[in-house]
Amino acid sequence: MSHQEALTKYLAAFITGLVQAGIKDVVISPGSRSTPLALMFSEHRDIKVYMNVDERSAAFFALGLAKASGNPVGLLCTSGTAAANYYPAVVEASLSGVPLIVMTADRPHELRDIGAPQAIDQLHLYGRHVKWFAEMALPEAGVEQLRYVKTTAIRAVKEAIGRDKGPVHLNFPFREPLLPILDPYPFHEEEKSINIEGGIHFLPYDKLKKIADQWQGIERGLIICGLIEEPDFTEAVTTLAKKLGYPILADPLSQLRSTSISETTVVDSYDAILKGKNVVNLLNPEIIIRFGGAPVSKSLSIYMKNLNDIEHIVVDSGSKWRDPNYVGTTMVQCNETVFCNDLATLIQEQKSSKWLSKWLELDEIAKKTIANHLQIIDELEEGKVVYELANLLPVDSTIFVGNSMPIRDVDTFFHKNNKNITVMANRGANGIDGVVSTALGAAVYKRPLFLVIGDLSFFHDLNGLLMAKLHKLNITIILLNNDGGGIFSYLPQYSEPKHFEVLFGTPTGLNYEHAVQMYHGQYTKIFDWESLKMAILDSVSYEGLNVIEIPTDRERNLFSHREMWEKVSQEINLFLQDAEK
Amino acid sequence: MSHQEALTKYLAAFITGLVQAGIKDVVISPGSRSTPLALMFSEHRDIKVYMNVDERSAAFFALGLAKASGNPVGLLCTSGTAAANYYPAVVEASLSGVPLIVMTADRPHELRDIGAPQAIDQLHLYGRHVKWFAEMALPEAGVEQLRYVKTTAIRAVKEAIGRDKGPVHLNFPFREPLLPILDPYPFHEEEKSINIEGGIHFLPYDKLKKIADQWQGIERGLIICGLIEEPDFTEAVTTLAKKLGYPILADPLSQLRSTSISETTVVDSYDAILKGKNVVNLLNPEIIIRFGGAPVSKSLSIYMKNLNDIEHIVVDSGSKWRDPNYVGTTMVQCNETVFCNDLATLIQEQKSSKWLSKWLELDEIAKKTIANHLQIIDELEEGKVVYELANLLPVDSTIFVGNSMPIRDVDTFFHKNNKNITVMANRGANGIDGVVSTALGAAVYKRPLFLVIGDLSFFHDLNGLLMAKLHKLNITIILLNNDGGGIFSYLPQYSEPKHFEVLFGTPTGLNYEHAVQMYHGQYTKIFDWESLKMAILDSVSYEGLNVIEIPTDRERNLFSHREMWEKVSQEINLFLQDAEK
Repeated sequence: MSHQEALTKYLAAFITGLVQAGIKDVVISPGSRSTPLALMFSEHRDIKVYMNVDERSAAFFALGLAKASGNPVGLLCTSGTAAANYYPAVVEASLSGVPLIVMTADRPHELRDIGAPQAIDQLHLYGRHVKWFAEMALPEAGVEQLRYVKTTAIRAVKEAIGRDKGPVHLNFPFREPLLPILDPYPFHEEEKSINIEGGIHFLPYDKLKKIADQWQGIERGLIICGLIEEPDFTEAVTTLAKKLGYPILADPLSQLRSTSISETTVVDSYDAILKGKNVVNLLNPEIIIRFGGAPVSKSLSIYMKNLNDIEHIVVDSGSKWRDPNYVGTTMVQCNETVFCNDLATLIQEQKSSKWLSKWLELDEIAKKTIANHLQIIDELEEGKVVYELANLLPVDSTIFVGNSMPIRDVDTFFHKNNKNITVMANRGANGIDGVVSTALGAAVYKRPLFLVIGDLSFFHDLNGLLMAKLHKLNITIILLNNDGGGIFSYLPQYSEPKHFEVLFGTPTGLNYEHAVQMYHGQYTKIFDWESLKMAILDSVSYEGLNVIEIPTDRERNLFSHREMWEKVSQEINLFLQDAEK
Repeated sequence: MSHQEALTKYLAAFITGLVQAGIKDVVISPGSRSTPLALMFSEHRDIKVYMNVDERSAAFFALGLAKASGNPVGLLCTSGTAAANYYPAVVEASLSGVPLIVMTADRPHELRDIGAPQAIDQLHLYGRHVKWFAEMALPEAGVEQLRYVKTTAIRAVKEAIGRDKGPVHLNFPFREPLLPILDPYPFHEEEKSINIEGGIHFLPYDKLKKIADQWQGIERGLIICGLIEEPDFTEAVTTLAKKLGYPILADPLSQLRSTSISETTVVDSYDAILKGKNVVNLLNPEIIIRFGGAPVSKSLSIYMKNLNDIEHIVVDSGSKWRDPNYVGTTMVQCNETVFCNDLATLIQEQKSSKWLSKWLELDEIAKKTIANHLQIIDELEEGKVVYELANLLPVDSTIFVGNSMPIRDVDTFFHKNNKNITVMANRGANGIDGVVSTALGAAVYKRPLFLVIGDLSFFHDLNGLLMAKLHKLNITIILLNNDGGGIFSYLPQYSEPKHFEVLFGTPTGLNYEHAVQMYHGQYTKIFDWESLKMAILDSVSYEGLNVIEIPTDRERNLFSHREMWEKVSQEINLFLQDAEK
C-alpha cells in the first residue's frame, strides 16, 4: 500500500469517527502541513468547512459555532505559531465548558527540535487548558491502526462533551507527500460506530429528603442563577422557586429573564438594589442556593460575601469548586435540572411569601427609578442604549454581549420580558478578545443576532469581520464607541490622573467606518435616540454585516451610572426603612 | 506599613532591578489587575512605555523592539486570556532567541480555580516555550523580600540574555487595592546592583589546531551561513573563507550580502544554481562548514541532504542541535566569531582557488540570467519587485521581510551590494502572524525601514498598524497583494483543483486602502514599474505609515519563477558540462 493510500485510509477512519460522534462543522486555517486533513474534511459530504485565515479568530469562531449549535466543533491548523494563536479561545472554551476538537498538524518526529523550519514543540501546547491531549501516530492503514484512529476520534469527542465539557487537542505528525487520494470518494457511510452514552449525576433519595425537610421551614431564601446551559433548567428552577417561595436573582446569562415561565419569581435589578449601604442588614436571607457560573453583578458578589454565616448551597453538575467568596456550606455535586425537579416533588408549596413579595416590590421600585432616570436623558449614553435595545429587540432574537462594560450594562438594563431572547457572552475568562468572531460563529445558528460591544473589544477582533464577508453571515453589531476603555473609569486608578488616559483610557481615535467598508458591511452612525430606533428596526431586514456605531462619552456614562445608582439606593432605603417600622 | 506602601516598595525594587539589568522599553496592554506594575513602569524616568491594546500585536511589537535594539524588552498584561494572546510571539522569541521579560498580572491564590472572574491558570502558561518561569511572591516589603524581588528581576534578565537567548515569564499575584503610591517618586537611583557577566564558549588550542590541520589541505569546501546575530561575525567568517579559499553561501539573514568586506567570497544565487538536476554531481564539495540558522533556500537544503557522505561541520554557540538534514559529522559548540578568528590564525592563506572561482562564475551566470529574465517583464510581478527594491533601497536602510513568499523572493532576488542594508525576518517559527507588529517594533530603532509582506500576512496582523498611528512610527510597507496564499501554488496541492482555491488560495477580496485610511497612513497603489520606483524614492522623505500596494497575480508569479529557474538551470548546466570537458 502506498504512503498516500495509507494516509487516505487513516484519515478517512478518523473523520468517519468524528462525524459519527457528532462533528458537523470544522473551522480550517490555510497551511501546508495540514493539507491531508484539510482536503479530507472538505471532501466529506456531511462536514461543513469554514475557512478563516487568522487562527485566533478561527478558534473563537469555532467557539461561537459550538456554543450556538450545542455540538462539538472541529478546528484545524498547520504547524508552528498558527497553533499558538488558538490559545486564547482554547482557554475560554476550557473555562466556559465548550467542546472543541483542536487538531494541529505537525512535522514528523525526525523534523522536530532539530532546526527545521515551521517546527515548534506542539506536545501539550495548551498545557492544562485542554481536557485531553493525544499525540497521534503517523498514518498507517493496518486493521488495528484504523481501529485505533477511529476510536481515538470518537473518544476525543467523548472527552469534549462529557462532564465538564471543554476543548481537547490532537496533534498529527504528517510526512510528505501530503496529498490524500480523493477519487474514489474515500468515506464509507455504512461503517459501524461506538456510541457515547453520557450518565447524569443525581442525589439519592435519602440525601434529597434530608435537604427538603431542612429547607421546608425556611422562609427567607434566595436562589441565585448565573450562566447555565442545562436543558430544561429554566422550568425546573422556576417550579422549585415557586414552591419554596424564594425569589430567583437571575443573571442575564441564566436565560431566566426572557421567559414568561419565571416572570413572577425572577428579580433582575438586584445589582442596583444591593448597591445601597444598609441593604445587607435589612435584606438578610437565611439560606442561599446557587446554580451556574459567577453572576456578573459585583454588588451581588459583595452581598454574598458579607452573608458568611448563613446556609449557602452550591449546586453544580461539573467537577469544579464554584465559590469565589468562600461562603459555601454545602457543595452539591448533581445535575442542576434533576436536582430542582426531584427536590420540588418533596417540597410542599408555600401559600404566600412576604419575603418574595418584598423582593418583587424592591425590583419594581428599582426598575421604576431606573426608567425615570433614563427617560430624561437626551444625550447618547451606553446604559440607555442597552435599555432601549431590550425594548426594540424582536421576539426569539439573540443578543451577544461583549465583556467589560456591555455585559454590566446588560445586567443593569436588560429586564424581565417574555420575548424569549437568548443572551450570550464569553464568560469563561471574560476576555475582550475574540468577541466578534464568537458572535459571528453563533450567528450561523442564531438569527437574528445582535452583538453589543465596546470599541476596544471590537478593535481587538476586527479581523473576525472577514468571516461575515466570506460566508455571508447576518449580524447586527451595536458598537458602543467611547474611544477607549470605559470600565477603568469605574476603578480606583481613575484617581491617578497623571497616567490614567495613557494607561487605561487608551483612546485609539479610529474611524471604524473604514473597517466596515473594507468588509463590505452596512454602516450607520447614530446621533440621537430616534435614529437608533430606526436603525435597530431596519436591521432585522438587512442581510449581511450591519454595524450601528453609537458615539458615547466615558465621563458622561460614569456620572450618569453613579447618579442612577444613588437614586435607586435612596428609594430602596426608604422602602426598607418603612418596612422595618 | 500599609498594603499600598509595601506594594510600592516591592515593585520599585523589582523595576529598579530590571532597569539596572538593561530594560529600557516596556510594552503594556491595558487592564485592571496589572495596574500596579503599569503605573510604576510609567512613573520610572528611564523606562519608555508603549501602550498596545491587542496583546498579540503587543508581544510581536516587543519582539521587534528587542531584535532591533539588541536589548531585552518587557511585556506586561493583565490576567486572563490577555496573557494567552502573547503565546505566538513567545514561541517565536523562544525559537529565534530574542530576550523578552513577559510579566503577567494574576489574581492572588485565593481567587484562583474557584470560579472567580478573569482568572485562568497562568502558572507555566507558556509551557516549554519560555526559558524560565517564576511565580512571584505576593508583595511584601521586608528587607529580605525586597532583596528577593530585585534579584529575581535581574536574574530574569540574565536568563533572557544568556546562552540561547529567549523569553522568560514572571507571574505576579496582586491583591486589591491595586494603586501604588507615586508621590514621592518611588525609585532611588543610587541603589547597588548585581552585574551580569556572560562568558563565551571557545575551543581549546589543541582541538582547534587539529581542525586547522585537517582543513588546510581540503580544496573544495563550502561555508554556509544562515541567520546569525553574533557581533563581528561578518568580518571573522569572511577572513576565514578567504584564507581557506571557500565560497560563502550566504542567506539574506546572515547580513553577509550587503557589505563590501565579503563581496569577493559570497555566493548568493545558490538557490537558483542548485535547482538544476545534475548539479550535485558536478558541484561536489569535500567539506561543508555551517553557521547560523537553517537557510531559507529549499534547493540548498536538498543539496546538503544529498551530500551525506562528506565532512559536515555545524558550529553553534547555542545549546541546540541544528541539523535538520541529519548530515552533520562534527557539532562544534563554540562562539562562531571566536571560532572563525582563532581558526584563521592557524590556517595558511590559499594563493588561488579554482573552486572558489568556479562558484563565483556560476553566481555571475545565474545573476545575469535572472537579470535578463526580469528585464523583459512588463507586468507587475513579485520577484521583480524585490529585485527593483534592492536597487532602490537607500544606504543603511533596513528591510523587514514577511514569511512565505517574500522571504523566498528576497533569497532569490536580493543580491550582493555594499549598501549596508540590514535584512530582518521572523525566522524562529516562520509564521505569517505578527509580522506587521514586529516590523513596527524594529522601526523604532531602524530607520528607514521597509516591510515587504504578502497580503495574507498583512491581514493577519492588521491590528498591528495601530502602533504606527499612536506612536507616530515611520515605516514603508510594500504590500504584495496577490489576494491569497501565493506559496501554495508552488506545492503539490496545486494539482487538486477541486478544493485548491477554497483551502489554499483563500482570496479575501479586501481593499486595504480602507485599512490604511483608518490608521491615517499614506496609501499608494502601483500599476507600473515607473510608479513603483517613484513611490519607493518618495517614501524616504515621508513621515509615518506609508503603504505601497502592488497588485500581482499568483499564476503569473508561479510561471515566471519556473521559467526563470529553467533558464538558470540551462545556463548552469552548460557551464558545468563545459568545465567537465
